[in-house]
Amino acid sequence: MTIDSKPVFGKVALIGIGLIGSSMAHGIKRGGLAAHVAGYANDPNVLEKARHIGFADSLHDTLEPAVRDADLVVLATPVGAFGPLAKAMSAHFKHGAILSDVGSVKTAVVRDVGPFVPDHVHLIPAHPIAGTEQSGPEAGFAELFDGRWCILTPPPGVDAAAIATLKTFWQRMGSQVEIMDPKHHDLVLAITSHVPHLIAYNIVGTAADLETVTESEVIKYSAGGFRDFTRIAASDPTMWRDVFLNNREAVLEMLTRFNEDLSLLQRAIRWGDGDMLFNLFTRTRAIRRSIIDAGQDSAEPNFGRGKKKP
Amino acid sequence: MTIDSKPVFGKVALIGIGLIGSSMAHGIKRGGLAAHVAGYANDPNVLEKARHIGFADSLHDTLEPAVRDADLVVLATPVGAFGPLAKAMSAHFKHGAILSDVGSVKTAVVRDVGPFVPDHVHLIPAHPIAGTEQSGPEAGFAELFDGRWCILTPPPGVDAAAIATLKTFWQRMGSQVEIMDPKHHDLVLAITSHVPHLIAYNIVGTAADLETVTESEVIKYSAGGFRDFTRIAASDPTMWRDVFLNNREAVLEMLTRFNEDLSLLQRAIRWGDGDMLFNLFTRTRAIRRSIIDAGQDSAEPNFGRGKKKP
Repeated sequence: MTIDSKPVFGKVALIGIGLIGSSMAHGIKRGGLAAHVAGYANDPNVLEKARHIGFADSLHDTLEPAVRDADLVVLATPVGAFGPLAKAMSAHFKHGAILSDVGSVKTAVVRDVGPFVPDHVHLIPAHPIAGTEQSGPEAGFAELFDGRWCILTPPPGVDAAAIATLKTFWQRMGSQVEIMDPKHHDLVLAITSHVPHLIAYNIVGTAADLETVTESEVIKYSAGGFRDFTRIAASDPTMWRDVFLNNREAVLEMLTRFNEDLSLLQRAIRWGDGDMLFNLFTRTRAIRRSIIDAGQDSAEPNFGRGKKKP
Repeated sequence: MTIDSKPVFGKVALIGIGLIGSSMAHGIKRGGLAAHVAGYANDPNVLEKARHIGFADSLHDTLEPAVRDADLVVLATPVGAFGPLAKAMSAHFKHGAILSDVGSVKTAVVRDVGPFVPDHVHLIPAHPIAGTEQSGPEAGFAELFDGRWCILTPPPGVDAAAIATLKTFWQRMGSQVEIMDPKHHDLVLAITSHVPHLIAYNIVGTAADLETVTESEVIKYSAGGFRDFTRIAASDPTMWRDVFLNNREAVLEMLTRFNEDLSLLQRAIRWGDGDMLFNLFTRTRAIRRSIIDAGQDSAEPNFGRGKKKP
């Protein structure tokens, strides 16, 4: 890898400075990726926290000064707000700017944002596959994207030089970059992220509503597996509502497959088919090993977290 | 808490020295809870690893010398083996010994083990709610039970002094102890542990079987949530097969509830009911906070694991 310490952009505008936006700001500073980082938020509390932490060169509660002269503008709010934000920014883009985002769905971005992008602006949707269960500007950190993948889904005909620049930006943020068709992205993420979150939210809801087991018992004995689902089900509610509303088709398709497979498992339990259970549980263990080998998770036994001496 | 450094038992026999058995051995040594720890395994490789690590005072590939003179005998194999093991040990128990276990199901233990327990032996099933996704004698560590709950499910009429002794043993192992009816235990664990594991195994299986998304894509982009499910789905296949075969009724009951709730969520996505989604996602977040407040998990953002500077 060639070490390049020159900034990739003059000015980057982060529209939204929660977990992902603030982590980008930290990462841009760490890597010297831009001369100026501008942050926008409509919530005064968020702006105040950001000012206190100090990860941006300028902070704004209106779009125009944030977007003005920016070479890269990144939508980093929940995806449901992308359309109205793009509309409001439309007249203020610098000539030749790149407009990107960090949303977890990609066909909806082209659909909602596309109509408001001037001809002289390059729309290149992006999705860094990284995050934690925490939210807000205080949750961000520069290392979030290190070793993770960032998927770009440029519409046909987008300027190749602009794609190359955005790719360099994410690589210098610490990530590996992949180019993908937005429809395929949405299918891949439906199974690797959206449906897993949905079933985590669902089991936590089910547990809370039981009449035979109390909520305090559920909390007390959560170390048997449940607590891991609550961690996933603690992710930002607005962000996730917007993901499900904007990736409906792929999520419902993957849910159908999940349900089919669950019915088979249910049947195996009912009829005592131990071989079927054992074979599945052995296959899934092998996939876990592949994920560790691919550097996408640590082999450290996390269930014993906070307990094992290093 | 009164500090007591006297051993609770003269000899403890651990029948099975995988993750839980070996962690108990380490915990017994740490706390000085027994004068002698005997370990039994039928696999020569497991015995060799245990010998190398050195957590037991004696190691055995036959039951009789392990159980002989033991004040506490703990079944720590997958629960499917409990019945045959109890039968084989039956003639060798010390007079007045406590026979316990660490299985994740409890009504099945009384059903399978009960018939082979001599009158002079106290059967007190137990379930420490602790574990990691790893298996084998090399995976164990003394701190595994610290701050976790251990549930005892003594059958009616069991000697109160024996219960008190076993309670002291687990408390000095670092755990908090609860007495529970075995049927209720199985219901609580079905929702807090067994069904969560089942749906984790299921989604990992679904993802591996898709024809529209490749397995290598699933692995590459697993940081969006999927990798957490693979961790849960990496737990020991034999142990979990036996759990589902031996807690059939409660697991199927909880699965029915899970499926009902999932249908509602599916419908909300199909019809774009954002309020329903948002309300659920907000409720589940609150339960997460309760688990952290109860000391059953850490607030440290684990999704960014291995990346955040301490």
